[in-house]
Amino acid sequence: MSKGTVVLAYSGGLDTSCILVWLKEQGYDVIAFLANIGQDEDFDEARKKAENLGAKKVFIEDLRAEFVEHFIWPAVQANAVYEDRYLLGTSLARPCISRSLVDVARREKAHFISHGATGKGNDQVRFELTSYALYPEVKAPWSMDANLMHISYESGILEDPKSHAPVDLYLMTKNPEEAPNAPDVLEITFRKGVPVKVTNLKDATSKDAALDIFLYLNEIGGRHGVGRIDIVENRFIGMKSRGIYETPGGTILLQAHLDIETFTMDKEVRRIKQGLSVKFSELVYNGFWYSPECDFVRHCIQKSQENVEGTVQLSVFKGQVYLLGRESPKSLYNEELVSMDKQGDYDPCDASGFIRINAVRLREYHRLQGLSSPKN
Amino acid sequence: MSKGTVVLAYSGGLDTSCILVWLKEQGYDVIAFLANIGQDEDFDEARKKAENLGAKKVFIEDLRAEFVEHFIWPAVQANAVYEDRYLLGTSLARPCISRSLVDVARREKAHFISHGATGKGNDQVRFELTSYALYPEVKAPWSMDANLMHISYESGILEDPKSHAPVDLYLMTKNPEEAPNAPDVLEITFRKGVPVKVTNLKDATSKDAALDIFLYLNEIGGRHGVGRIDIVENRFIGMKSRGIYETPGGTILLQAHLDIETFTMDKEVRRIKQGLSVKFSELVYNGFWYSPECDFVRHCIQKSQENVEGTVQLSVFKGQVYLLGRESPKSLYNEELVSMDKQGDYDPCDASGFIRINAVRLREYHRLQGLSSPKN
Amino acid sequence: MSKGTVVLAYSGGLDTSCILVWLKEQGYDVIAFLANIGQDEDFDEARKKAENLGAKKVFIEDLRAEFVEHFIWPAVQANAVYEDRYLLGTSLARPCISRSLVDVARREKAHFISHGATGKGNDQVRFELTSYALYPEVKAPWSMDANLMHISYESGILEDPKSHAPVDLYLMTKNPEEAPNAPDVLEITFRKGVPVKVTNLKDATSKDAALDIFLYLNEIGGRHGVGRIDIVENRFIGMKSRGIYETPGGTILLQAHLDIETFTMDKEVRRIKQGLSVKFSELVYNGFWYSPECDFVRHCIQKSQENVEGTVQLSVFKGQVYLLGRESPKSLYNEELVSMDKQGDYDPCDASGFIRINAVRLREYHRLQGLSSPKN
Amino acid sequence: MSKGTVVLAYSGGLDTSCILVWLKEQGYDVIAFLANIGQDEDFDEARKKAENLGAKKVFIEDLRAEFVEHFIWPAVQANAVYEDRYLLGTSLARPCISRSLVDVARREKAHFISHGATGKGNDQVRFELTSYALYPEVKAPWSMDANLMHISYESGILEDPKSHAPVDLYLMTKNPEEAPNAPDVLEITFRKGVPVKVTNLKDATSKDAALDIFLYLNEIGGRHGVGRIDIVENRFIGMKSRGIYETPGGTILLQAHLDIETFTMDKEVRRIKQGLSVKFSELVYNGFWYSPECDFVRHCIQKSQENVEGTVQLSVFKGQVYLLGRESPKSLYNEELVSMDKQGDYDPCDASGFIRINAVRLREYHRLQGLSSPKN
Repeated sequence: MSKGTVVLAYSGGLDTSCILVWLKEQGYDVIAFLANIGQDEDFDEARKKAENLGAKKVFIEDLRAEFVEHFIWPAVQANAVYEDRYLLGTSLARPCISRSLVDVARREKAHFISHGATGKGNDQVRFELTSYALYPEVKAPWSMDANLMHISYESGILEDPKSHAPVDLYLMTKNPEEAPNAPDVLEITFRKGVPVKVTNLKDATSKDAALDIFLYLNEIGGRHGVGRIDIVENRFIGMKSRGIYETPGGTILLQAHLDIETFTMDKEVRRIKQGLSVKFSELVYNGFWYSPECDFVRHCIQKSQENVEGTVQLSVFKGQVYLLGRESPKSLYNEELVSMDKQGDYDPCDASGFIRINAVRLREYHRLQGLSSPKN
Repeated sequence: MSKGTVVLAYSGGLDTSCILVWLKEQGYDVIAFLANIGQDEDFDEARKKAENLGAKKVFIEDLRAEFVEHFIWPAVQANAVYEDRYLLGTSLARPCISRSLVDVARREKAHFISHGATGKGNDQVRFELTSYALYPEVKAPWSMDANLMHISYESGILEDPKSHAPVDLYLMTKNPEEAPNAPDVLEITFRKGVPVKVTNLKDATSKDAALDIFLYLNEIGGRHGVGRIDIVENRFIGMKSRGIYETPGGTILLQAHLDIETFTMDKEVRRIKQGLSVKFSELVYNGFWYSPECDFVRHCIQKSQENVEGTVQLSVFKGQVYLLGRESPKSLYNEELVSMDKQGDYDPCDASGFIRINAVRLREYHRLQGLSSPKN
Repeated sequence: MSKGTVVLAYSGGLDTSCILVWLKEQGYDVIAFLANIGQDEDFDEARKKAENLGAKKVFIEDLRAEFVEHFIWPAVQANAVYEDRYLLGTSLARPCISRSLVDVARREKAHFISHGATGKGNDQVRFELTSYALYPEVKAPWSMDANLMHISYESGILEDPKSHAPVDLYLMTKNPEEAPNAPDVLEITFRKGVPVKVTNLKDATSKDAALDIFLYLNEIGGRHGVGRIDIVENRFIGMKSRGIYETPGGTILLQAHLDIETFTMDKEVRRIKQGLSVKFSELVYNGFWYSPECDFVRHCIQKSQENVEGTVQLSVFKGQVYLLGRESPKSLYNEELVSMDKQGDYDPCDASGFIRINAVRLREYHRLQGLSSPKN
Repeated sequence: MSKGTVVLAYSGGLDTSCILVWLKEQGYDVIAFLANIGQDEDFDEARKKAENLGAKKVFIEDLRAEFVEHFIWPAVQANAVYEDRYLLGTSLARPCISRSLVDVARREKAHFISHGATGKGNDQVRFELTSYALYPEVKAPWSMDANLMHISYESGILEDPKSHAPVDLYLMTKNPEEAPNAPDVLEITFRKGVPVKVTNLKDATSKDAALDIFLYLNEIGGRHGVGRIDIVENRFIGMKSRGIYETPGGTILLQAHLDIETFTMDKEVRRIKQGLSVKFSELVYNGFWYSPECDFVRHCIQKSQENVEGTVQLSVFKGQVYLLGRESPKSLYNEELVSMDKQGDYDPCDASGFIRINAVRLREYHRLQGLSSPKN
């Protein structure tokens, strides 16, 4: 008699195949669940393999568009970067997969969920926190780390932080040394802080669906070797680890969004939003996508994006993204005001008053210092 | 009879030459002051010109080493970046120059100071705030914007934010498209968060004095086209402006320092320090280097750098900096702890407890949501 | 011939009466504008006086309900306190009055606005910033500082920060030494973070309109001497000033709201919101109510209040507010979970895992310290 | 044969007496450790009891002065308050006791440590994190919650958040209704942000040793019913709990320190320090006193206190503390500058320039809004 039904997050790889067999041997009915989040995988092959190993059912879900629209777009709006460098490719995919897995489990009335994440990484936390938030039962680990946003690499010789990454490691991006000798120039249009159109000015290729835009940016970024980083990062559980990531499309979007945002957003709103973005990045990294605080922060960030609208031109070349120009109907940039040649609406005397008032405090401070140290 | 002595921040250019003549015509004795902060200038020529125009004295001060050690190094320790992109090359030079100018004025018992910064930019604020803080009298404008840290460009056709920068604009960096086809690989050693040695692994060139290190990084970064940005930024006085900057050495150091810092600094200290760095960058940008709050923040940041020590290897190629590896006697990275293959001192069951405790709050929240929305 | 029409913010007092006469003498048509924000004033008398002095029209606007609902309520939601102590009674009234004044000016097609705030205080900034934001022309000063939220006192002997305030200074609150010897016990009900009902459990008095609630809390707080503070504060323009305030109703509401908020709001949401509240208080103090960043922060704070609902019991006695108990249908408090006597859903072993994971980082840190200092 | 030596944090109460007996029965040698942190306890009696129950040794350590100087004083400097209300009396005592306990264990070469904190509260975390940081072995629970800083009450009928606290609950403070009908007036002198002298102006009582100062403030505060709070708070482990605290001396010091700090500290330094204080309070509450980040934050806060010096006068009456006046040789308050009657060094025209520059941004924003909504 069956001990119950387990939904297994199945990757097609060795680890989760072993788990599948072991679960069956322990007396469970196993439903294999494969999320298509853009990793390079033969899904038909994986389905057959799971069936051969004894899975009662196999579900393969194409989550790519959902991943882009509901997880990557909010990160773009936030300029989400963990510890100043990591673009959160894995962290964003985990809650997307987990939510879908939980849906399957609930639909199939499964009693257990099994993932393949090891007990030493962040992914166990991200996976299990989501499950606790959305559904009560859970069991552990996978190590898939490729999706349409990025590929990450860790362990093996990379565990020695001073050893260089092998040249042939990367799968999504070309080696910049072998990238084309001429740039591609892109025009990206944003509305409410998310890209709604990308056009390649060289060949007039144009995309306007979310998934298409992102895949196309991956293609262009990958071709030019954009978005490789080699970093040491701090895991939620308090240890440092070394990771290598390639995030071609995400890197282009980060630069483009930063630019259009600064162009259209009030300076002080931007400052407050910048603090919320640091928070957002930490929450996502730590696995708290489905939490009241992440809901709240996402809501606030989204509010800040209402006027983030316009078009950015940039070139992509040998691993680098160069901003070339920008325009927007919502810009707060006032060419006349800023011009050195025109007076505009601006009275230079006001600046003197502004400075003197700002100096009131500084003068008091230095006056006091003079009093307290007689030599000064 | 003289109306008094003015120390004029003289650049050798047209603007400040006119000011010099005008001040003399008004009846002032003029002392010309030229700061050498690494800009490309024929100082002998400038001295002659000032004398010919009637300057009573001419002082030329080589502030390059002081600029690197007392202004750029603290910025490196802070990972100082304004609005996520600008490395503050002008903002850091201003207080360095102003302090020296004030010293000359005090030494020469001058009654007035004159600079050449226009009333529309940040530099007026930076210059005058420093002077108010350090010395009482002041009057306005210059537009020198080259120093050993960076060159900045604004106004003219750049005032239209969508027009691209001319290809031949840049002076410090090569066009990445024309940069060498092979990278340089550097090894940079830090102590207390500042670079103490740089070695080029290709030709064994090595530098260990502060100014030499910085100039050498400029040379390498410049050769490979590193550190060009084209941004719209928010000035202190509330208007947006478009600026183009090239900061080759500073860009390499930012990447290298970020890496060695994350490698050696505790995660939570880093988080707090990150907030202080954002503050530091704003203060410097706004001209508040000589303020009690900037003193305080600099002190705190410096404290955080005590263990930031070690060596980073990186390659520089076609406009980009790639981290390759790092090592440190003070690292908090524990290879055994992080390894997927070794158990180390880490019990996977602890992670389960950790996650369940983190989920206590989330479960309550979702329980409440269930209560309040009956369909859920 | 008239030089144009001026709308004068008229207080009925000596200062603004003089300004009225002077403006007429200069050849302006003067419209006197009196805002009723709950100050103790004979408005009929003031109207007559203005007419006698030559005002062409007199407008008296009862802004009390608007002041409570649109300005005080958001501050209650924010727990708005400037520099840990000041409840912002004046700062909140200024934008309320200025908006109304601007409306009158626009309606009457006036060319100028005149207020009576001095050039040394915050009020000039608050008044004029609002006017610049909402309407183009303006001129200066008043010193009314009483409204239904608070009365503030400054200048005169209070300018010496060590001199005590005269016993008979206060107008809204009784001296606590002479307050009743028995407390009043109130029950305050909140919805979305604002009070919707107050009941006095002693005599069953009950109020449920916004203005009535606030006035009643003032009455009770005033009777018991609640909400007096004597502080030194930092003005926007960088000088320190000493202020004495009495804010009876506001003080009761701050305590009550803090309590119901912590009871119903998720811990981490609260932390983020606490940071936004500090920002909100600064913005309001500095006169930036009508700014993009204050709009943004108000929106975010309001979002955080969705579940801030429930009833608080408190007693008011001799200058102090004591929380007695609270209940809420939206509470995240789980009596079973927190109980020492019941196990609930909580496994004590999880806490051990949680702690050990939190200690991973600390152990590494102390291990490193041991390495670097051999004596340790 | 003994299984090893355990140092037990012994309180003299029933819980830890049971643990002592149980540990002996299991075959351990037990060393009883009693920390005197100012709780109301007959220590001789407790020593006898421990010996009678079979403790091999009994250590009683008077930690009161250390507690005040090394734990309470930094909290005073920080204005440490958790979630806007709780003064951290228990949180501060835990690391003080734990450190001493670890010292005893190390000296006595004990293999185990046992405390009596339950697995549901914060104290287990605080105790065990400290032990992990400072020494490797540990086991659980106590519930002592009285010390010289405060007494806290929880559980029992208090677990129902709407039930009122019993009138006879409090031990350190008099019921304000029964407190004296005349205030005490105190003068407290600070140096580097900590109190160095307190004088009662009524009877000239004066104290100048740290422990004496704190105990005297407790006595005065207790006599007048100062420092009672009834709150719901968020525990580190994610549940809400209700706590009742009385912290008489700490409450007086918080008010006094806030006042002298604002009087002497630069406005912008204060703002940055305020953020660090919120962080400090969280760290202490969560048990991270001995962590790199708490070390760092304490260092920064201490730096900010260098000029926090001067004398505050206040009265204490019926549960409330009233600031009366303050003076300081280091004050940044400039009576002449702030005066309404004197012009001082301040030019009112500067304020107009200051305001117009601040409005540049607001005008652009409203201009844009006008463009985008044609009705406006």
